[in-house]
Amino acid sequence: MTGRDAPRGRIRPAPENHLSADDLQAGRRRFLAGAAGAGAALVAATVRADDPAILALPEHSRTLGQPVAARGYGLPSRHEANVQRRASPGLTRTAISSIAFAPLQSLFGIITPSGLHFERHHAGWHDIDPATHRLMIHGLVRRPKVYTVDDLMRFPSVSRIHFIECGANSGMEWANVAVPTVQYTHGMLSCSEFTGVPLSTLLDDVGCDTGRGRFVLAEGADGASLTRTIPMEMALDDVLVVYGQNGEMLRPENGYPLRLLVPGVQGVSSVKWLRRLEVGDQPWNTREEALHYIDMLPDGRHRQYTWINECKSVITTPSGGQVLLGTGYYEITGLAWSGRGRIAHVDVSVDGGRTWREARLQEPVLDKALTRFRLDWMWDGSPAVLQSRAVDETGYVQPRMRTLRAVRGTRAIYHNNAIQSWRVDPNGEVSNVQIG
Amino acid sequence: MTGRDAPRGRIRPAPENHLSADDLQAGRRRFLAGAAGAGAALVAATVRADDPAILALPEHSRTLGQPVAARGYGLPSRHEANVQRRASPGLTRTAISSIAFAPLQSLFGIITPSGLHFERHHAGWHDIDPATHRLMIHGLVRRPKVYTVDDLMRFPSVSRIHFIECGANSGMEWANVAVPTVQYTHGMLSCSEFTGVPLSTLLDDVGCDTGRGRFVLAEGADGASLTRTIPMEMALDDVLVVYGQNGEMLRPENGYPLRLLVPGVQGVSSVKWLRRLEVGDQPWNTREEALHYIDMLPDGRHRQYTWINECKSVITTPSGGQVLLGTGYYEITGLAWSGRGRIAHVDVSVDGGRTWREARLQEPVLDKALTRFRLDWMWDGSPAVLQSRAVDETGYVQPRMRTLRAVRGTRAIYHNNAIQSWRVDPNGEVSNVQIG
Repeated sequence: MTGRDAPRGRIRPAPENHLSADDLQAGRRRFLAGAAGAGAALVAATVRADDPAILALPEHSRTLGQPVAARGYGLPSRHEANVQRRASPGLTRTAISSIAFAPLQSLFGIITPSGLHFERHHAGWHDIDPATHRLMIHGLVRRPKVYTVDDLMRFPSVSRIHFIECGANSGMEWANVAVPTVQYTHGMLSCSEFTGVPLSTLLDDVGCDTGRGRFVLAEGADGASLTRTIPMEMALDDVLVVYGQNGEMLRPENGYPLRLLVPGVQGVSSVKWLRRLEVGDQPWNTREEALHYIDMLPDGRHRQYTWINECKSVITTPSGGQVLLGTGYYEITGLAWSGRGRIAHVDVSVDGGRTWREARLQEPVLDKALTRFRLDWMWDGSPAVLQSRAVDETGYVQPRMRTLRAVRGTRAIYHNNAIQSWRVDPNGEVSNVQIG
Repeated sequence: MTGRDAPRGRIRPAPENHLSADDLQAGRRRFLAGAAGAGAALVAATVRADDPAILALPEHSRTLGQPVAARGYGLPSRHEANVQRRASPGLTRTAISSIAFAPLQSLFGIITPSGLHFERHHAGWHDIDPATHRLMIHGLVRRPKVYTVDDLMRFPSVSRIHFIECGANSGMEWANVAVPTVQYTHGMLSCSEFTGVPLSTLLDDVGCDTGRGRFVLAEGADGASLTRTIPMEMALDDVLVVYGQNGEMLRPENGYPLRLLVPGVQGVSSVKWLRRLEVGDQPWNTREEALHYIDMLPDGRHRQYTWINECKSVITTPSGGQVLLGTGYYEITGLAWSGRGRIAHVDVSVDGGRTWREARLQEPVLDKALTRFRLDWMWDGSPAVLQSRAVDETGYVQPRMRTLRAVRGTRAIYHNNAIQSWRVDPNGEVSNVQIG
């Protein structure tokens, strides 16, 4: 586990911390104690050609290594044991209806490895046998049908790279809880290359009545029987019934063998372990639509069926809990996304939003996919507040927290797409602050 | 392991077979015995709404499932235990200098999961500690330097999706060996989102003499000390020093913590466990350039330094060893790629090259990346020979085997980019044949 506290690009990663105040305090003390010594040592070190590490031929250059496996499936290095998705023991009452967050601070590019894709279950996950799994499509259709997984894999398929973000991602920021790391503030976010059948193809196959049928109900096969309403115009647009993720079959905790994918819509609608689709003429107003995934406004009313993941971004490095080990050049990098299409541009501020510079976007910039942005930064050791602000192709600008609070108040849980602020202290420590 | 022989899209997957003639014969008998029964059963079965599988509520719909892990890294379903990279015991004298092939027949889209990325080692793989690993850049440079992994991660980074194909991929087709499956004919091919530092940035950092310095030597830190020459124009174009693959760090068997990535060039040049880059004024003519990765021509001369992966494609489904379980609609799908840029189009033939239809290309079509193609096909049960023919943006057309043999003869091992043929027999069995 030597990688656990190794600096990366002269940034010391956050320790494994949870959301409890005690852990947080202890973590703060640990950062401060560690940063001074390690930082000073690294700043002083200049790598030289007579570095003993290159003069002594290491063991791995003098010996034969491991053979190829006769049959096998590879795993990450033992030195990467700290790169894990993580649950937060204090966050939910049970680990069965809970969340494991993706380690955004450790990820590169836009693809989330399937082993690190965030998890959110309402009644736990199952490893369902695809040979016995079925998908029924019924309701306002001329030919209700029951499909095997095999049937579905025979239809013409498409592959597309899309993000999935839980509607509750960054939810604790509403109430200004000092969530320590980007894994916990924004880690209910992942992006994969999905493969499956367009839902429009299946609705055509069952003879969907697209006149009367204005909504589709999706239901999961887990114990929660989770249900969500999908508007017909979405269902006929880019919704997929998915079996493939990042080149292989879906993972059990992400819906194996079948899930819905509703691109750009909060994750709960991308129903996992999909077993039933019903065409109807009005929204179902299910438990997950009436009690959860709604926003309590300042006047006591609820916003309901606000499912689009609006344009959002977050800086993943430097981010909360990390420590900058010295002044000089850093690449500020992060992710931007919009449920309404492509990202048009991302601006980054290092002074809490007073001035902004345009970040580089990594091509290809794809529809309803994560977009990696990067900006060069020379840190002179003075206090800084790092922010990113994304704009999508519709012209929508990611709002400041106070703008969002003015409309929605502070009692919401869901649908926070505000600008995230990370404060950099003179000692290099990075922490979550709410500014602007 | 119920997935091992489960049909997918009414296609029975190939059993686990190797390259020995005995296994191959036994496999053939097993296919033939199995295909008749299973095929007939499936053709006759029509899924009905009173299917017992949907009337009896399964266990996973009545119980709580598995919790989220407090910290963890996910794995594929136990039902996918057959989707593995595989070595072929007869192929090399030792498993330390050997190959594990990617299961192309089971993959979707263009991303290869890192756990299934093909392996090719010359002296085995190591899990090198990044804290002690170094990269030296020297030779015709003004400021020779030794970099830590941490130093390299501090440079401005880029992420790009590229394929890696071994120069020996499809090598056994030269001599008309009946390699049974696409995993073994074309499985030294994978595609990932790579993240790293442009080599041009590092050459600039060391003050490379781009007048006299016309070549770069790359050396690996494994026991083979594998070395390859890279021309300077390539080094300054799109070559990367890579640490990230599919969102996380490189896997140990694919070069952790550092590898070179020479996009579009045979895999051996993308030196793994990269420890040294030397700038020089002529090619080094190393063992891997003088004895291997060269092509013996009919007149006894060798082609050397022919490193570009020329435009190529292969149908992955249906492919060798699979069995079509009945007539009707199938989606023919496969992969196309070119070391010279983007794929322009792919044509597919079902009659051994007499007639061709243009396949759909999955967007985005990226530079020196795999491109997924698809074509609708109604199989009427008569014999068919499936072929794909890719054309890249330079206008280069993937050649027929006989065209390539006319120039290169049959004694080559490397650089076969000929059209692959899969014969479909009336019983649905698909096999590797050489036609055209």
